[in-house]
Amino acid sequence: MTQAVRHDSMRARNLGVVLGEVRRSGPVTRAALAEMTGLTKTTVSKMVADLLAAGMVTETGVPSRGERGRPGTAVALSGGRVAALGLEINVDYLSACVVDLALEVRLRRARAVDNRAASPVETLSHLRELAREAVEEARSLGLVVAGSTLAVPGPVDDGLVHSAPNLGWRDVHVGELLDGLLAPSDARLPPAAPVPVPTVDNEANLAALGELWFGSGHRDFLHVSGEIGIGAGLVVDGALFRGSRGLAGELGHVVVFPDGPPCRCGGRGCLEQYAGQEALLRAAGAGTVEELAGRLRDGDAAALTACERAGHALGLALTSAVHLFDPGTIVLGGVFAPLFPWISGAVRETTALRLSAIRDAVPDLAVSRLGGDAATLGAAGQVIHRIIADPVAYVTASRTAPAGSKPR
Amino acid sequence: MTQAVRHDSMRARNLGVVLGEVRRSGPVTRAALAEMTGLTKTTVSKMVADLLAAGMVTETGVPSRGERGRPGTAVALSGGRVAALGLEINVDYLSACVVDLALEVRLRRARAVDNRAASPVETLSHLRELAREAVEEARSLGLVVAGSTLAVPGPVDDGLVHSAPNLGWRDVHVGELLDGLLAPSDARLPPAAPVPVPTVDNEANLAALGELWFGSGHRDFLHVSGEIGIGAGLVVDGALFRGSRGLAGELGHVVVFPDGPPCRCGGRGCLEQYAGQEALLRAAGAGTVEELAGRLRDGDAAALTACERAGHALGLALTSAVHLFDPGTIVLGGVFAPLFPWISGAVRETTALRLSAIRDAVPDLAVSRLGGDAATLGAAGQVIHRIIADPVAYVTASRTAPAGSKPR
Repeated sequence: MTQAVRHDSMRARNLGVVLGEVRRSGPVTRAALAEMTGLTKTTVSKMVADLLAAGMVTETGVPSRGERGRPGTAVALSGGRVAALGLEINVDYLSACVVDLALEVRLRRARAVDNRAASPVETLSHLRELAREAVEEARSLGLVVAGSTLAVPGPVDDGLVHSAPNLGWRDVHVGELLDGLLAPSDARLPPAAPVPVPTVDNEANLAALGELWFGSGHRDFLHVSGEIGIGAGLVVDGALFRGSRGLAGELGHVVVFPDGPPCRCGGRGCLEQYAGQEALLRAAGAGTVEELAGRLRDGDAAALTACERAGHALGLALTSAVHLFDPGTIVLGGVFAPLFPWISGAVRETTALRLSAIRDAVPDLAVSRLGGDAATLGAAGQVIHRIIADPVAYVTASRTAPAGSKPR
Repeated sequence: MTQAVRHDSMRARNLGVVLGEVRRSGPVTRAALAEMTGLTKTTVSKMVADLLAAGMVTETGVPSRGERGRPGTAVALSGGRVAALGLEINVDYLSACVVDLALEVRLRRARAVDNRAASPVETLSHLRELAREAVEEARSLGLVVAGSTLAVPGPVDDGLVHSAPNLGWRDVHVGELLDGLLAPSDARLPPAAPVPVPTVDNEANLAALGELWFGSGHRDFLHVSGEIGIGAGLVVDGALFRGSRGLAGELGHVVVFPDGPPCRCGGRGCLEQYAGQEALLRAAGAGTVEELAGRLRDGDAAALTACERAGHALGLALTSAVHLFDPGTIVLGGVFAPLFPWISGAVRETTALRLSAIRDAVPDLAVSRLGGDAATLGAAGQVIHRIIADPVAYVTASRTAPAGSKPR
């Protein structure tokens, strides 16, 4: 390792250490940062200068509490410049959100689209437009979108969606397709802020991360994403469990009634066939989740029975999931959030009946406050967490670009 | 932190670093150890001297390969002195094994006992006798048993077995009971090597660790322990997944047929009711697993049908487990090991039918080479791994005790 390479990698590490400490400790002086990190004051000052120049931290007049000596200027995370784009493709909608470095949600956009009727390229073209609008709107707020993650409703392996049966996708290389679509080759368009090519991840995983970072503050939970498909994301002690190849948490295909109706996955009697959005609406005779919720509020018997049956099936699948995963709380999100008052009773009854004799504590059942936004929020939050853990690429890009220009 | 405390904790850390490197790198010189660990040669020499005195490493005349300079004396892990005791209580047997520091299995003992007919205290008294015999036999081999872990067939929380329905145990404080039974209060007995009070852990978790350390070398797998109960242990990248409270992997209570026969767990139609040892023997009309295997070899139709049905149920539960856990290989152990030739076909057929359309790779199905020994091996291996990670307590005990006496 040459001297220069060693210096660069040390600088990268130190930038991450200082930014991480600023995030954890709120407004904090340079002297306190030196003490907390074990770095010299000179090194801390240099790192802070770089982070200030990149707009990632800001100086505040308020001194940190409990500091000895004369009050210095404190440094805090800045939400004013660096931001991340969260994107989601689901069966019947596309959505986007922009989150700043301080994890404040700055804007949300959604568009109802039937992505089953569209080819992957058509869907991704629509997504590109939505992403461009979001990035432009972020720019008008003074934000620079430094990275992006896209949530898709199926298992993802390095940008490849092997199978998203509810979208009708098989072996779709989302990463490659987006790379082409987002290349700055479209000379007809006026110069615009570049849209970063997103990394692609599973919707249920990202929704669980959304719940972790933007939800109710639990650090041990199973988040259930009720959509047309049903996915789950397990968080243990603040970390997402992904399995051996990143394909864990496919709750929707847990076998509930082995001889039940065939499922698009090739199996039979999967949870999705009883509690997925389409199965539920069909059983209730409703066209949309809003319509179903309305009927439930009116006490419609068919709607109530449909929810009770879905809740029973969900309770059976969750019984198996609790035995295997041993989660803390269970958080119901997606369409299960608005339907929670009518679905949770049957879930609780079924799980209690089957779990309480062998487990001293049946996991609590809670409703997600994020509902359908969890995955896009988790997608954007993942980018922010990556930037904070390793800010060097972003800091370097903003240093080499002339003032006012856009970092790569 | 005082100077002395800081020195002690640094010594503890350095002992662990040096011993860990000796284990990883095989016979290795002190000079190479200094280079690998970044410690000074003086520190390495001191640590090696302590480890030699404690009998944890040994000097060999063979120099390490590829060393520059004159060949020095190499240091290697020694299996000659420090050992660990693995114990298991299962429904119809007790077993013990002793494993040395080099992870060689030095002895095994098993005893057929019907532990359902016995009270927890009676079972633990039998276990104490088995443990004493194993420790004495280890002593006759020149080994000192430095620690012990006990495997029990149920979820364990800090020494408490909340519920092991197949043993008829509820809220049994195994840790406390053993503490009393193993206290050196029994003045009638001749002076004997003390039996360490074991830590208590779940049988299925320890069996998975046994497979990891003594099995076929996989680092990503779901190990299925087929006993009267059925447990599973998930290993991802060489680490056991335990869930939020250590109660993960209860495969036996995954719901297979929701309206099936009642299970001792309070549920209905759990996997155990179809593929557990008792259910399987009852369906086949056999008294023991050996008898069943004999009939299967003879082509007995009832036995073959019973195994096929059990395999189908196991395949359904594993389908759910694969969707949730995303394991690498699936390893069938316990009684499923001797029955593998007659059970694996139905498991493969069921999982392939339900998984292959949505997953690009259905996990391989393999047979455990350890069978019923996996949990005791894992129990002993866990102790050895703890000693190697943190040898200071053992090194200190052997230094303060006079030569030839027993470390605590």
